[in-house]
Amino acid sequence: MTYTAPIEDMMFVLEELCGLDDITRLPAFADLDPETARAILQEAGKFAGEVLAPLNAAGDRAGLGFDQGRVTLPEGWAEAYHSMCEMGWNAPVARDCGGMGLPALVNSAVQEMFSGANTAFQLCSMLTQGAVEAIDLYASQAQKALYLPKLVSGQWSGTMNLTEPQAGSDLGAIRTRAVPEGDHYRVSGQKIFITYGAHDMTENIIHLVLARLPDAPAGTKGISMFIVPKRLVNADGTLGAANDLRCVSLEHKMGIHASPTATMSFGDAGGAIGYLVGAPNQGLHYMFAMMNNARLGVGLQGVGIAEHATQGAVAFALERRQGRVPQGASSTAIISHPDIRRMLGLMRARTEAARVLAYRAARSLDLARHSDDARQQHWHQQRVDLLIPVVKAWSTELSLSTASLGVQVHGGMGYIEETGAAQHLRDARITSIYEGTTGIQALDLVGRKIALDKGAAAFALVADMRASAARLEQAGLEWANPERAAPDGPDWARLAAQVNEAAALVEEVTQWIIGQNGQEPQASACAVLELFGLCLGAWAMGDAAYHAAKRLAAGRQTAHARAKLAMADFYMAQCFPMARALRRMVEDGAASILALEPEDFAIGA
Amino acid sequence: MTYTAPIEDMMFVLEELCGLDDITRLPAFADLDPETARAILQEAGKFAGEVLAPLNAAGDRAGLGFDQGRVTLPEGWAEAYHSMCEMGWNAPVARDCGGMGLPALVNSAVQEMFSGANTAFQLCSMLTQGAVEAIDLYASQAQKALYLPKLVSGQWSGTMNLTEPQAGSDLGAIRTRAVPEGDHYRVSGQKIFITYGAHDMTENIIHLVLARLPDAPAGTKGISMFIVPKRLVNADGTLGAANDLRCVSLEHKMGIHASPTATMSFGDAGGAIGYLVGAPNQGLHYMFAMMNNARLGVGLQGVGIAEHATQGAVAFALERRQGRVPQGASSTAIISHPDIRRMLGLMRARTEAARVLAYRAARSLDLARHSDDARQQHWHQQRVDLLIPVVKAWSTELSLSTASLGVQVHGGMGYIEETGAAQHLRDARITSIYEGTTGIQALDLVGRKIALDKGAAAFALVADMRASAARLEQAGLEWANPERAAPDGPDWARLAAQVNEAAALVEEVTQWIIGQNGQEPQASACAVLELFGLCLGAWAMGDAAYHAAKRLAAGRQTAHARAKLAMADFYMAQCFPMARALRRMVEDGAASILALEPEDFAIGA
Repeated sequence: MTYTAPIEDMMFVLEELCGLDDITRLPAFADLDPETARAILQEAGKFAGEVLAPLNAAGDRAGLGFDQGRVTLPEGWAEAYHSMCEMGWNAPVARDCGGMGLPALVNSAVQEMFSGANTAFQLCSMLTQGAVEAIDLYASQAQKALYLPKLVSGQWSGTMNLTEPQAGSDLGAIRTRAVPEGDHYRVSGQKIFITYGAHDMTENIIHLVLARLPDAPAGTKGISMFIVPKRLVNADGTLGAANDLRCVSLEHKMGIHASPTATMSFGDAGGAIGYLVGAPNQGLHYMFAMMNNARLGVGLQGVGIAEHATQGAVAFALERRQGRVPQGASSTAIISHPDIRRMLGLMRARTEAARVLAYRAARSLDLARHSDDARQQHWHQQRVDLLIPVVKAWSTELSLSTASLGVQVHGGMGYIEETGAAQHLRDARITSIYEGTTGIQALDLVGRKIALDKGAAAFALVADMRASAARLEQAGLEWANPERAAPDGPDWARLAAQVNEAAALVEEVTQWIIGQNGQEPQASACAVLELFGLCLGAWAMGDAAYHAAKRLAAGRQTAHARAKLAMADFYMAQCFPMARALRRMVEDGAASILALEPEDFAIGA
Repeated sequence: MTYTAPIEDMMFVLEELCGLDDITRLPAFADLDPETARAILQEAGKFAGEVLAPLNAAGDRAGLGFDQGRVTLPEGWAEAYHSMCEMGWNAPVARDCGGMGLPALVNSAVQEMFSGANTAFQLCSMLTQGAVEAIDLYASQAQKALYLPKLVSGQWSGTMNLTEPQAGSDLGAIRTRAVPEGDHYRVSGQKIFITYGAHDMTENIIHLVLARLPDAPAGTKGISMFIVPKRLVNADGTLGAANDLRCVSLEHKMGIHASPTATMSFGDAGGAIGYLVGAPNQGLHYMFAMMNNARLGVGLQGVGIAEHATQGAVAFALERRQGRVPQGASSTAIISHPDIRRMLGLMRARTEAARVLAYRAARSLDLARHSDDARQQHWHQQRVDLLIPVVKAWSTELSLSTASLGVQVHGGMGYIEETGAAQHLRDARITSIYEGTTGIQALDLVGRKIALDKGAAAFALVADMRASAARLEQAGLEWANPERAAPDGPDWARLAAQVNEAAALVEEVTQWIIGQNGQEPQASACAVLELFGLCLGAWAMGDAAYHAAKRLAAGRQTAHARAKLAMADFYMAQCFPMARALRRMVEDGAASILALEPEDFAIGA
């Protein structure tokens, strides 16, 4: 099992499909150009392939040590973490306090690599990046000065403490309390599922904790955010006494075995000292503001795991000999069997489509934040808000089915843990749950992102999809001369029609949603989200085919461009047709869901 | 986590959809009637729920002991095994040698229960049943007398030794050798993935081993079958010396942790003593003859795991409170949320449809073997041959997605091993691989089962589906009076149209296959198989709705019948539409698969 960062495809997506040029021309990224971006990806890819990937299986097998609240990570973990921090990869988007100031777009490729190579490892930085962002956006200058530099450098790590036993998807049910005491608060309560809540790689851990003030209103409007360090930090930045918090236990999980998932107890001895971030009762608002980044991060985990699983399956299918092809005398590599190619095609084509969607969301994140045009900022903020639930849920669901296909390609060997294929499936299984389940993402999409603005953001997307289709039609006319077109190039008119159909499906479903008053959109939300994923994937693959053919016509990068045309065709034939079935299910299927009663599930029934 | 055998649904399927009456009227089953069958299922269900299910999670956690070739099963395993054998459940289909002589139809329900309650445990009997069948069909009278009684009683267990490192799906590549020596042979070679190849529950293990004679032709036509006991058996049935075979190692698997998957070495000290079964070079033929039973058995594992996973998810969704429903002040059980109901509906409706398909295959097995009408025998043999690959692959693929939905319903808790939801997914993952992968089943369906008889068996199925649709249309006319129909009953005309559409899809795809000469049917084989599963599922749910409504009209079993109508409607709205998309993919998609070249998967590409 090896992992090789797919630099060529990443750069193709960045340059041709995400307008890397536009991003590097922003004043905020004046020191970056596409060639520097490529060098950065190459350096990160080398680290992912040579350092992180080899630790992946070993970490899965070794798991974690736990002794009286102390958590030990697997061998080699801390060294890799410190190397990563030295290279500046711990929080590459941070602009001050020693951060590289990378665009989210370029960082997306980096995060895809790191999480693809070793999901359990990358989670530590992912959580720290969330804490850095929260503190950067909402904390006081003094708090920023005290905490940010060491979080960015990786000297300390960060966590997000949201979930409680009775408060999972429903954060309004949080009970952890914070009582004011002088310039700080005393925090008490139990938090579960705290990723990297305890570990031995850093000298301190900065917990961001959601809790209620004594006079807080009930529900989601009464939640505040607190900085609760594992060890208190003196005004000069040196470490003080241990805070009143501990890791009670670690969960025994299906996957990401080397990522500690801690149950944290705050305030067993009177209350952990915590510092309010921003204003009281704004905690959930702050969380939501950070959520786009966090959900993009998990979506990128999905893309990364799918890529890693695909690479493993391709390598196996090229090497493993079994059966014969017609007219073949000796055994053949299994990649020659049509069904193996079908499975590998599903793995590769969907991973590539999901990569485009995720990076496009990141591009809009950059433009929403750094464009000098307020209208552009607003437009891209709408776009990113719309795309994020799709990226998060579609990429992660797809990582799961991709990793499962990876096991299948390996046959019986895939079920044996030593092969590594099963680990991808076990690791992927959490990604469609944490940071908001697929069901939560789907409700977000149909409710906040489509119904609330009466489909405005979705219709803007439809317009972009139609523009892509029009360009493909035009290409069909201009490139009709076979000398200029790719020899195995697509049927441009058909491809244009498919992208137009994808646009129409998104449009129709959006219109249906904004015309509903009842629970129907909730019932059909997951079907809507999957339809969006498949249709945006079709748009992405259509655009990719266009640019690949352009490159081919110019004599550039023949291997990658040819493969891209084949994958686009495959995607349209093997993945996109499901969108039509979903279209029908969205409208006709809601009633069948809402009609189900709890008693229909009784076993006696 | 508990498991309750779904006796009501099982009996409904047996009586209304599989004509249990027809089977118990066969002379071979003269001592059985439907009430006795129900009593048998209740007894077996009690054992599955009270004895096997509680060992399931513990066995997963404890795993296996391995020390110098000796394998220790988890605590309680041997006791449960001996109880099961005492109750006669080890090989219930066997007719002589102390077997119960159950119809395959009734045994299907028993095997679904046992494998659903504890897949890892049930595998021991499942493999023994295969060995019993092989010996019963093909061995000499003396061999039968020596081995069968103790295999049927469970005093000894049996295994199937097929796979070798270079011979997985391609058994023609087998290298294990058998050299004649007097009345026996000396067998040498290595076999991998041998389920229950070594364990401590029985005093002897009877290995059935595929091997080559010195003068055997190459490939699949040179494989013979041998009985190779772990301990040699004297003519009087007492145990003799240890044979020259050993368990070299156990695999570290993703799931079924308590089922030993052994690497077996035969003949390290000169050759294990083996006895030829039947004629030389007929081994693969014998294997194929047993394959319907074995593949039905794995299909039933799929149904059983899906049922168990569904029960766990339903129990959790009824208990777990999170979020609010509109207008609700306090938190609500998550089953109230539409997307949770959707997931539970998918789990339940598909499991019920798969149960019908599997039991219908078993019914045809019984009639193919025990009907006194040769034409009926032939007709049912065709039917069972056609259904088996669909039952095996569709049920197991569905168990995987069902178990994965089960994890999703549990949210973060589903990823924690203690919940039990993850184990179902890990256990289910092997079922679409062993006894022939989904890809192999699909090739069997399109090649041997459809193309070879020019679609005759498939067209017979289409005729049955159309007859069901016609009956539904008729019901719509007769039951138009709302006093007689189920109050929430389906739209009969629509249901009839859906079943007719399912029949048309099967027919069209069959016609397409028999019209092809190239590799296209191979490329589209998995899509064809899934389409068959979904369409036969629609047929099953249509029939189920009909009989449920009839029962309701007669005032019988209101809860089960009402739930069945809801599930049929749900299946048609949420599962069946995918068949239409597959229909298009079968024809239009093959080219996109065959166009993929190995170099399209290069990472640099």
